[in-house]
Amino acid sequence: MHTDLAEKFGIQYPIFGFTPSEHVAAAISRAGGLGVLGCVRFNDPDELEATLTWMDENTDGKPYGVDIVMPAKVPTEGGAVDLDKLIPAEHRAFVNRTLDDLGVPPLSDDVEHATGVLGWLHSVARSHVDVALNHRISLIANALGSPPKDVIDLAHEKGVPVAALAGAVDHARSHVENGVDIVIAQGYEAGGHTGEIASMVLVPEIVDAVGDSAGVLAAGGIGSGRQVAAALALGASGVWMGSYWLTTSEYKLGSAADGPSSIQRALLGATSADTVRSRIYSGKPARLLKTKWTDAWAEPDAPEPLPMPLQNILVSEAHQRISAGSDPEVVAMPVGQIVGRMNEIRPVADVMAELVAEFESTVSRLDGLKG
Amino acid sequence: MHTDLAEKFGIQYPIFGFTPSEHVAAAISRAGGLGVLGCVRFNDPDELEATLTWMDENTDGKPYGVDIVMPAKVPTEGGAVDLDKLIPAEHRAFVNRTLDDLGVPPLSDDVEHATGVLGWLHSVARSHVDVALNHRISLIANALGSPPKDVIDLAHEKGVPVAALAGAVDHARSHVENGVDIVIAQGYEAGGHTGEIASMVLVPEIVDAVGDSAGVLAAGGIGSGRQVAAALALGASGVWMGSYWLTTSEYKLGSAADGPSSIQRALLGATSADTVRSRIYSGKPARLLKTKWTDAWAEPDAPEPLPMPLQNILVSEAHQRISAGSDPEVVAMPVGQIVGRMNEIRPVADVMAELVAEFESTVSRLDGLKG
Repeated sequence: MHTDLAEKFGIQYPIFGFTPSEHVAAAISRAGGLGVLGCVRFNDPDELEATLTWMDENTDGKPYGVDIVMPAKVPTEGGAVDLDKLIPAEHRAFVNRTLDDLGVPPLSDDVEHATGVLGWLHSVARSHVDVALNHRISLIANALGSPPKDVIDLAHEKGVPVAALAGAVDHARSHVENGVDIVIAQGYEAGGHTGEIASMVLVPEIVDAVGDSAGVLAAGGIGSGRQVAAALALGASGVWMGSYWLTTSEYKLGSAADGPSSIQRALLGATSADTVRSRIYSGKPARLLKTKWTDAWAEPDAPEPLPMPLQNILVSEAHQRISAGSDPEVVAMPVGQIVGRMNEIRPVADVMAELVAEFESTVSRLDGLKG
Repeated sequence: MHTDLAEKFGIQYPIFGFTPSEHVAAAISRAGGLGVLGCVRFNDPDELEATLTWMDENTDGKPYGVDIVMPAKVPTEGGAVDLDKLIPAEHRAFVNRTLDDLGVPPLSDDVEHATGVLGWLHSVARSHVDVALNHRISLIANALGSPPKDVIDLAHEKGVPVAALAGAVDHARSHVENGVDIVIAQGYEAGGHTGEIASMVLVPEIVDAVGDSAGVLAAGGIGSGRQVAAALALGASGVWMGSYWLTTSEYKLGSAADGPSSIQRALLGATSADTVRSRIYSGKPARLLKTKWTDAWAEPDAPEPLPMPLQNILVSEAHQRISAGSDPEVVAMPVGQIVGRMNEIRPVADVMAELVAEFESTVSRLDGLKG
């Protein structure tokens, strides 16, 4: 599986693995892909600094990247306390009532209450950029639109390419105009923030639209070598996988003391039909695992989700309570339709080896169909 | 592009082309694919009889198939007049008001008013089966669930394989249990009736679920050789294309005297973002071209669409009025997200040649990426 893009990044396989876990990201890089650490959960830049130092030391000198969420348009800026005031009481009451109805325990007194994903604020995202550029990163990705021009320029000065997610051709064209080097064509089936166009249509459209001016990674619905082959058949130079790493052995976030966490147990049991695309996680449409929590927000009495970043601030403590709980039927987790193929906990290296082997056998099979 | 399935059907390429136009269907078969004539528009069995006789005479002896819509569960049976009484006055008033607002002319007095797609009724669909089995058809497909058991048995007695659309793995499994020979895995991106799972995820899931007990065709989002290669990479034995033929030169339904019809002009101008999935066409979720007509049904004052078959009876005369009109911004047309790639009117033979050539070059390109 040798593409020009893999060569450019000095990686063995053009498999880019997005994950909030440094253990998973490092394992992806060690296995020949490019691990991309999601930084949005690091509200404290010092914690990110320590984690990236750990990445430097645990990737066998192989390349890795970071994903920093910088919304193209931020409706509101400010500290958690200011923003807090903008949340209607009706919304807070609904969240509290729902958590009680679902039997989610309150946080224990000694836990620091979450203040929401401040990484979605420009000020915090910019501190992430500054921290990351002091480490040997090979990619800065942005999950929401093009990064600001000065961030792109700064990254380019340091020789770091910039990637941005696109759910439509227009977004991809605008990324390229803004100087983005890699467009991640994220289809409807993907987890997290997604648009309406499915990968089968979106990927070749974006490949054709950007031409030679950017590399294109296919994102959404990828968890097997057949799907990697399909993505490359559609013209992508590589793949961007996120959901599939959530059920690897190295993923320990929200984990129970032993064995799979309640989130992992929920993912293992889900089919491809068990996701919903909703604004309840962040304020923008994102695909989530369908659970009693998402069901509650779909009831007629549920309020409309708030705009970004307010919605996440509204639900951040709820997410914390849910994560601390142990009910796999009540989890709050972005995941793509590929969840139907996530049926066992395996090490990253096994996943990677299987992706590569099935890619090779798929290409051989296709070769046999040629005229 | 030689698959076992193509060999089984005696066709050159495993490209199954669904179309309501006998001219397009015959051209697909003549070009080496399998043209599948959609029968739902034939309320009169004699008209279908005449059309299939024409197909027999205009396909150079090559195989062709028919698509007959037999819903697994029909809420209501009866003639158009009985069913008419079940439609609320509020719905009729909304349709009439909307057509007036959009400037759609009334039908001229000498035109027979449409009574709705009675093909969706079991009684009519069964007469289609009886007519079709007296012709040299190579496939009976059903766009809504498994056909009734006695229809499957009757087809098998005559040596005709049966295909059924599936938007989820459970449907595919149930089709196979009911004796269906070919499962059409129809992804979210497809035109007409679709489920929620996109092709990238759905196709390999269904391939794995049915194993050797049925062939699988990938449907949804296919309009280029790269997409055919992606579908076969995902494990499909062939592809099922519908939307893409609507902009072929042979497609003359609803056509103006000269040049492209208003529907074709609307399709040529649309991007992949210009579709909606809605119940307004038939009562079941179907992907349609987004136009002022679909926009009107998305307004807060619009009524909820009725269940199948009432919704189609409600809108059938509206569809007739819209088709007779000439405004490309007011059309009522099922089409998939691939509409963004439908940018010129071309003969079926040219489309087929390009699909095959691009498939071959894609497979060669993938072969160059192997380890």
